[in-house]
Amino acid sequence: MMKTISLIQFGLGGVGRALVERVLAARDEFEWRYGLHVRYIALCDSRSAAIDLDGFSFTQLRRMLAAKEQGQSLEDLEFGYKRESLEDIVDIAGGEDVVVVDVTASDETTPALLLALERGYAVVLANKKPLAGSFETFRQLTQSGRLRYEATVGAGVPVIATLREAIIPSFDRVFRIEGCFSGTLGFLTTGLEEGRLFSELVREAQELGYTEPDPREDLGGMDVARKALILARTLGWPLELKHIPVESLFPADMSSGSVQAFLQALPRLDESYRQKVEAARTRGHTLRYVARLADGAATVGLREVPKESALGQLRGSDNLAAFHTEVYNQTPLVLQGRGAGVHGTAAGVLADIIALVR
Amino acid sequence: MMKTISLIQFGLGGVGRALVERVLAARDEFEWRYGLHVRYIALCDSRSAAIDLDGFSFTQLRRMLAAKEQGQSLEDLEFGYKRESLEDIVDIAGGEDVVVVDVTASDETTPALLLALERGYAVVLANKKPLAGSFETFRQLTQSGRLRYEATVGAGVPVIATLREAIIPSFDRVFRIEGCFSGTLGFLTTGLEEGRLFSELVREAQELGYTEPDPREDLGGMDVARKALILARTLGWPLELKHIPVESLFPADMSSGSVQAFLQALPRLDESYRQKVEAARTRGHTLRYVARLADGAATVGLREVPKESALGQLRGSDNLAAFHTEVYNQTPLVLQGRGAGVHGTAAGVLADIIALVR
Repeated sequence: MMKTISLIQFGLGGVGRALVERVLAARDEFEWRYGLHVRYIALCDSRSAAIDLDGFSFTQLRRMLAAKEQGQSLEDLEFGYKRESLEDIVDIAGGEDVVVVDVTASDETTPALLLALERGYAVVLANKKPLAGSFETFRQLTQSGRLRYEATVGAGVPVIATLREAIIPSFDRVFRIEGCFSGTLGFLTTGLEEGRLFSELVREAQELGYTEPDPREDLGGMDVARKALILARTLGWPLELKHIPVESLFPADMSSGSVQAFLQALPRLDESYRQKVEAARTRGHTLRYVARLADGAATVGLREVPKESALGQLRGSDNLAAFHTEVYNQTPLVLQGRGAGVHGTAAGVLADIIALVR
Repeated sequence: MMKTISLIQFGLGGVGRALVERVLAARDEFEWRYGLHVRYIALCDSRSAAIDLDGFSFTQLRRMLAAKEQGQSLEDLEFGYKRESLEDIVDIAGGEDVVVVDVTASDETTPALLLALERGYAVVLANKKPLAGSFETFRQLTQSGRLRYEATVGAGVPVIATLREAIIPSFDRVFRIEGCFSGTLGFLTTGLEEGRLFSELVREAQELGYTEPDPREDLGGMDVARKALILARTLGWPLELKHIPVESLFPADMSSGSVQAFLQALPRLDESYRQKVEAARTRGHTLRYVARLADGAATVGLREVPKESALGQLRGSDNLAAFHTEVYNQTPLVLQGRGAGVHGTAAGVLADIIALVR
């Protein structure tokens, strides 16, 4: 017995396009493995949309991907149009067994997601923003049990699933979670450990496309803080983002001004980072940018960790989560792997879609 | 709305007792968190059983645990009796929302498990044997989707869930899985790396209770081979145990004779292991007892691995699984943690129970 699953997707950036590709590639496998026929009934980019309640064809989806890759908008295609709100899209593109997928980085999708849940649809997020707003909104979004958000922390590395489906239901007690949840900051701290200059590493990360166009968005730590907040709330802690002390890797007086000016001023931080690395080394430690959850509170910042610890052994841009619990009391339960990149994120989203509809 | 879940448990050894304790401790939490009322309607040890279709009381369960800890049998209690087959138990102790839990190490539970599945019950295994028989039996047991077996590999470390619920449904392609799935052999290889003698390490492992009373059961590698077989079959590979080359850590001529004679003969292996460790070291490698799955085949044995690899960095008795896939192509997705012990195993079983009944 085949079940038809209809996807509504918000977002056609890198992750969004990787997800469409993955769904197209997986269609046959999902039919024989899970008895699921997966199709798209609506796709939206930042200003336009395309809807077909009978499901878009392979050719139409390929044309959308091609258009987006060329920097066009969906409204440039004959079946696309300039959209109003995302709620309108959810309103029009309904049906049975609908999954709404938010792979944007927008903080404006929440009303449409709540409407989708109200209609009984399932929701999958790679977008952290809706879950990093107020705790009340987090509660509203998650209380139905029809929303999953694996890709918001560690991309495809099953950090959230391990917490929600292995640790919590086994009646284990979480004492502490520590993790590195930024590939960019992992690249930087590994480079610092190797004796390289902070300014040089930031420039290289920017040139390699590891950072946002303005690297301050990564170096400020807010993205990691949102992930820590999502983990804390998953544990049931009613935290707000403002409760999480976030250590920025640059001083406040460098937060205004152009990217160019920021990069030029960076070398004045080099000596201070060199000293921190050296001080850590004398204690057998190394520096990592760590999210730490313990005793109902979360903190995010540069920390000295023992070189021999899981965090200390982490190299490069991999993410890592270490769960210290009653069961994992002598050594933590550790998950590690590529925690960023469009393919890992799309993989995490797809696993969530299948989990929700099976 | 509260749902009542009725457990039938085969096995009241260390894991079985830890599971009963955990269920008792978790009862209130399961009610408020998941709306589940979890109770026991039948428990069996190797020769007796106790059944109460209304669910055993806290006091009765405590008395069973106390009796077992004192080496008694359930039939020594006034509500226990000498049982016939386990199928009889499944036959008598039926009802709605029943979960049969196999925490024995027996190869004789399969008919009762198949009967339970036929009745529409869910089944959770910590026992590897039923899944390590013929591939046809594996298929029969797993095809309904109502059987889970997280604790058979890596105890509570979510190795099976990651494969079944993160990697496979995300349409990722598995190139290779490598892992260390024996805490005992991890203890030995870490000790060898530190320059200790093989014979001394085996004696210490036996004295610490890390090995079976006859340490050859661990050193022979069959337990690891069964885990590799279960992982391979989870990937859909139709392997049989006899297809897996298993390297024993002692020569065939030491496989008969008393445990005492075995331990006395062990020092003759010391020099050979010392040389292997030394040879590995000159190449920047170290020795690990590795299960390896690739290209439809599995092997189990002592391997040289790079010291810098995830397997090479593993210390002591922790288990580790490294998934090399299309998404995790530069560095593997790694899971690591305590892979043995009654509490980790009971935790894995309990997470499976909740996953099946939610």
